[in-house]
Amino acid sequence: MAATTALDLRAQFPTLQREGVAYLDSAATSQTPEPVLAAMDDYYRHHRASVHRGVYPLAAEATDLFEGARTRIAARLRWPDRDTVFTRNATEAINIVAAGWGRRHVGPGDRILVTTMEHHSNFVPWWSLAKEAGAELVEVPIDDEGLLDLDALDRLLPGAKVLAVAHVSNVLGTINPIADILARARAHGVVTVVDGSQAIPQLPVDLGALDPDFYAWTGHKAYGPTGVGVLHGRHDLLLDTEPLIGGGHMISSVSFEEVRWAAPPTRFEAGTGAIAEVIGLGAASDWLGGIGMDAVRAHEHDITAYALARLGEVEDLTLHGPRDADRRGALVSFAVKGVHPHDVSEILGRRGVCVRAGHHCAQPLMRRLGESATTRASFGVHTTREEIDALVEGLGEVRRIFA
Amino acid sequence: MAATTALDLRAQFPTLQREGVAYLDSAATSQTPEPVLAAMDDYYRHHRASVHRGVYPLAAEATDLFEGARTRIAARLRWPDRDTVFTRNATEAINIVAAGWGRRHVGPGDRILVTTMEHHSNFVPWWSLAKEAGAELVEVPIDDEGLLDLDALDRLLPGAKVLAVAHVSNVLGTINPIADILARARAHGVVTVVDGSQAIPQLPVDLGALDPDFYAWTGHKAYGPTGVGVLHGRHDLLLDTEPLIGGGHMISSVSFEEVRWAAPPTRFEAGTGAIAEVIGLGAASDWLGGIGMDAVRAHEHDITAYALARLGEVEDLTLHGPRDADRRGALVSFAVKGVHPHDVSEILGRRGVCVRAGHHCAQPLMRRLGESATTRASFGVHTTREEIDALVEGLGEVRRIFA
Repeated sequence: MAATTALDLRAQFPTLQREGVAYLDSAATSQTPEPVLAAMDDYYRHHRASVHRGVYPLAAEATDLFEGARTRIAARLRWPDRDTVFTRNATEAINIVAAGWGRRHVGPGDRILVTTMEHHSNFVPWWSLAKEAGAELVEVPIDDEGLLDLDALDRLLPGAKVLAVAHVSNVLGTINPIADILARARAHGVVTVVDGSQAIPQLPVDLGALDPDFYAWTGHKAYGPTGVGVLHGRHDLLLDTEPLIGGGHMISSVSFEEVRWAAPPTRFEAGTGAIAEVIGLGAASDWLGGIGMDAVRAHEHDITAYALARLGEVEDLTLHGPRDADRRGALVSFAVKGVHPHDVSEILGRRGVCVRAGHHCAQPLMRRLGESATTRASFGVHTTREEIDALVEGLGEVRRIFA
Repeated sequence: MAATTALDLRAQFPTLQREGVAYLDSAATSQTPEPVLAAMDDYYRHHRASVHRGVYPLAAEATDLFEGARTRIAARLRWPDRDTVFTRNATEAINIVAAGWGRRHVGPGDRILVTTMEHHSNFVPWWSLAKEAGAELVEVPIDDEGLLDLDALDRLLPGAKVLAVAHVSNVLGTINPIADILARARAHGVVTVVDGSQAIPQLPVDLGALDPDFYAWTGHKAYGPTGVGVLHGRHDLLLDTEPLIGGGHMISSVSFEEVRWAAPPTRFEAGTGAIAEVIGLGAASDWLGGIGMDAVRAHEHDITAYALARLGEVEDLTLHGPRDADRRGALVSFAVKGVHPHDVSEILGRRGVCVRAGHHCAQPLMRRLGESATTRASFGVHTTREEIDALVEGLGEVRRIFA
């Protein structure tokens, strides 16, 4: 995707039409393109009904839109649709696994491996499980460049129960060699739970080839709406997973004496789901597929390499994570010497440059980096070199103010 | 609200503009009025950013919209906003209570009271808790008219731990005397968990006056978007409730050694929430408040009384639930002798009359009624007498076909 194509795509993002806005916070939440808004609008305006349980035409139309989205999302990522569960977000997806599979299979003394770079969404559920089960939460360390220590991983895998690992780090940008990691874990019978929240919008992902045990991601970072996420699971493991939330739809029968769960994915989708959001996410998936993930990656690789080069020119700026754009997703975290990240973000924000400051829901990683917070600029299909230039110019002002 | 006002309101519901559609399934999911769609559109088009964690203006705008919705929703129902939690739906809200409060406080031999008329959302979580805790799930029965047996309740309350009770039954239509019920439970120190999913869109509800321990409802039945629900809880009880889902945002600190939860409501809102949906729900709440719940109730009372009268004229039709519209929400369930409810619904659906057939996520109640399924027609602010007439005419055809 050439820069002109990125500019062409910009017209599809309403908020980017705001004067002077350089949105560099896609890793927090992505902008939403017109086709996604149109798909949700179509549901609300023309097919508004509940799904699954109605036999009148409006309900059948809504059900077709909802289940059609599941089928297309699953097909694009090459995973069975019956093993593709809709959740609120990646966090809920991972909690389903930790609580529903973990409580059954992780016991006293068992080891749960979690990398230093995990987002709290793939950390806190395992911490809770370890505490409840009397299991041990073991850190898989990273090196000083922000790459996962694969030798350490090899030492830790034997006898471990679970490996929780991000596909792409939301702070370091590190693209973990996930196929290799999953193969190593598989060789030791360690169940893998991958947080793909940053990967799905950025990289070509072929789940059929990767063969994870569980793979979670969120819609709102993948050009979809808020309020919807996805859990892909291996069928036999999903069958062996208790539901996190009980209620309507997820049951096959209910009485005072006994409740029986429905089969996956229904078992994990209690109550009325995020109907419009699932439909919107289907449109987002189609839209990404239409651009082509190779093109998305090529564009963001170019922007990231440009950002690394331009930020490298800024004095007193420390870059976190791999220096090589090949090993990096579309984001750059950094520290400006002597300036708190919140001040950096606020000064940039006044200039319309939207970047995130904070611990990015990754406090264990912050400790490893020796920082309480970082500033993070993150990119999307619509990001231009001019926006990177605006970031670098803004950082010049930050340094002048704090000189 | 006069019939003309209902007709005026119809223009605000896009799907109702479809030719020949008589939407009589509001109890399953409500239609969505234009101001709700406009509020979500405004967020996606002009303020698309994540909430709480960004310091740039776009993120601050999004946060103001999100938290502003919480404040207005809580204020309209007269409950503290810090004790008003956003969930995916009522089901998740009740699961938070059953798992997070229940596991701490319900033990072997304890009694959990659940009424015969509960929706699975206020039944399955308690069944699971009872099973896990070794507690007893005890039925609070109903009489033949579908009214809760308050004498039986009085006998069951002493020594019980929890009472799970619907404000309005989604099958019988019964409006439970909730203030009275809550007072009785309070007198015995029994924690009350009210499913208000049908009540919030239909009745004036003053939570400050009712003083429940927990009150759950869902947005998509209350003219809001899909994908968002609400849990109101008493502050001291919420403080004493473990989160159901762990991850980002809901923590105050995270390390391999220790995780500390944030205060309510944040503790229960892990990960990126349903931002657009919360904003949409705020608009729905404003919209209902603008009409006035007394006016909503008056209109739906009129429609329900008319429906009861007209359906009473249909031969071989059995009405379930109270005969008096004063004791009923805006829905009527019935059986047509010799015709399966799915056939009733399908024949009506071909005529554009949208009614639900099935167990309505209330299998224990179905058993009590001696039915495997019922047909249900349910009404909203937009329902007209002409739509009830269309239902009755359709039932005439059903009877002719099956004669």
